[in-house]
Amino acid sequence: MFDNKSQGRQPVSELGEFGLIKHLTKHFKIKQQTTAKGVGDDAAVLNQETGYQTLLTTDMLVEGVHFDLSYMPLKHLGYKAVIVNLSDVYAMNANAEQITVSIAISNRFPIEAVEELYAGIKTACEMYNVDLVGGDTTSSTSGLIISITAIGKAKAEDVVYRNGAKPNDLVVVSGDIGAAYLGLQVLEREKQVFLVNPKAQPDLEPYSYLVERQLKPEARKDVVELLKGLGVKPTSMIDISDGLSSEILHICDQSKVGCKIFEERIPLDPQFISTCEEFKLEATTIAMSGGEDYELLFTIPIEDHDKIKGNPHLTVIGHIADVSEGVNLITRANAQVPIIAKGWNNLSADEEE
Amino acid sequence: MFDNKSQGRQPVSELGEFGLIKHLTKHFKIKQQTTAKGVGDDAAVLNQETGYQTLLTTDMLVEGVHFDLSYMPLKHLGYKAVIVNLSDVYAMNANAEQITVSIAISNRFPIEAVEELYAGIKTACEMYNVDLVGGDTTSSTSGLIISITAIGKAKAEDVVYRNGAKPNDLVVVSGDIGAAYLGLQVLEREKQVFLVNPKAQPDLEPYSYLVERQLKPEARKDVVELLKGLGVKPTSMIDISDGLSSEILHICDQSKVGCKIFEERIPLDPQFISTCEEFKLEATTIAMSGGEDYELLFTIPIEDHDKIKGNPHLTVIGHIADVSEGVNLITRANAQVPIIAKGWNNLSADEEE
Repeated sequence: MFDNKSQGRQPVSELGEFGLIKHLTKHFKIKQQTTAKGVGDDAAVLNQETGYQTLLTTDMLVEGVHFDLSYMPLKHLGYKAVIVNLSDVYAMNANAEQITVSIAISNRFPIEAVEELYAGIKTACEMYNVDLVGGDTTSSTSGLIISITAIGKAKAEDVVYRNGAKPNDLVVVSGDIGAAYLGLQVLEREKQVFLVNPKAQPDLEPYSYLVERQLKPEARKDVVELLKGLGVKPTSMIDISDGLSSEILHICDQSKVGCKIFEERIPLDPQFISTCEEFKLEATTIAMSGGEDYELLFTIPIEDHDKIKGNPHLTVIGHIADVSEGVNLITRANAQVPIIAKGWNNLSADEEE
Repeated sequence: MFDNKSQGRQPVSELGEFGLIKHLTKHFKIKQQTTAKGVGDDAAVLNQETGYQTLLTTDMLVEGVHFDLSYMPLKHLGYKAVIVNLSDVYAMNANAEQITVSIAISNRFPIEAVEELYAGIKTACEMYNVDLVGGDTTSSTSGLIISITAIGKAKAEDVVYRNGAKPNDLVVVSGDIGAAYLGLQVLEREKQVFLVNPKAQPDLEPYSYLVERQLKPEARKDVVELLKGLGVKPTSMIDISDGLSSEILHICDQSKVGCKIFEERIPLDPQFISTCEEFKLEATTIAMSGGEDYELLFTIPIEDHDKIKGNPHLTVIGHIADVSEGVNLITRANAQVPIIAKGWNNLSADEEE
């Protein structure tokens, strides 16, 4: 299939593995003082500073499961693949400094396509001040696979885990949620229209925010810095990759607490609300279960409320309760509904589609 | 296809991603003091010791490119996937302490199969005293993909790069080479026999060493410790994953030197030699180009010769020369032949097959 589209282009197999890695990484600059040696040896070498711990996280994105190249531009894909990993480092209240990138691609993939992917990776590295220090490039018998590992650091006393939430702590979320999932629904709908009528010109303007949230999410490094500036250390934190329901359950489960989340407090974008109406989708359900927003969900002591009150990036959506009270959503009608995990589950994704 | 074989078994999709990770990792114990937090949060947390650097390396294995499940037992595959990464850390003269494991599998894969894979990973972790601290489990639309990142540490002054070889240094290789590649040829031949006559019983006994080198390679942690004990610090080092030719070229290229490798000195196992004769393959060519031995190739100052002389694990195969002399093999007939990279190239693997 792809061959027809790439007539006259140079396939990656002509460069070979080492040639390709060299070619793709030659424009990446090392900026972090902790990077002693990047790409080019058996392993990268990182310097350590006294009093700091190292954070390490990894995520794999699979074509046909996590992304669809028919509407995901390769540059955006490269960018997003980095973001989802950095987000996990920020969710520990740490700073990300290095990544490694491994990709498996068909050897008939044109070099220009891999260059696009790496252009997105490079943009993310520059935006978030992260060094690319290693990786692996191999051939795939089918689709594109991207596996990224991110490394960060934080002083031991600053690291925030999922298990520190205490009764009466406030539950806070950054930005707004649900838009990334809805953006995916918009793109899926346009794809179906296109398959029926390839001449149809999609008008994505009314959904621009939603589509951008899906195709070019950001990691909330700014929120980690904001909290530091405000003198607030969360008692627990997680990033919203699988949906608010799933993430608040992780915090409550690991902290051995319950919570009350108030439906009316959940931050939603106006475009999200109007598009939910158009798609006849229940906004709260989507906001609770839709994933990939990469916002931060965290808890803070109630004494810190004044420090964050009124901040446009942060919304208090509820509070932690005793474990015996359970994990609940308080609806607009003041009904109490247990929160169950309905997050985006990759392992059953094929069957859901 | 796979469904027919797994009647009545539980597919992984029933457990879901979080359930599966918990299930697979529950028997792994944390043993390293540097592991502050393993699996179960947004990122793993590692302690750092003053004066040490962190080593970081990653490798991805793809079904149909790097392994064939028709003769690679899943337990061996899990073991080998860890080994190839640890080998890269040892090749920096460092000790490996943690790994993360990401896998993409069909959601119809039975849990028993994934358990087998993780049993191999666990065995490798125990053998090499390494902690599993994180990872990702996702579905694949086609074959099995395994991406592993290994983390190690070494004192800054102990780290050995590829670029430190100097003229007159001795070139040393651990163990023997070529056997892993030849083991793969044996397995490929048996597979073809089986496809023609499924009732044929393969007799692998005469090839037991070769097959074991392919299916259950070891990483030379012992050689790193041996050299430390002997008071020898290599001037450059690399592990032999892509073949001796390819690796010596990396060292010479990065160290900006030439070398002379003597054909008669290359360490070969008797089973390797006899099977090369049976297969009508030229032993030196296979030894130079066959990959996956995971032996260490390194250079040492000539003054250290007495320290390693006679050691059964180490063989001096040549010496470093001025860059103007080129990278050469001196044959048994005393002819000088330039060494060119003919290592195992994953990006053109599909076309070579």
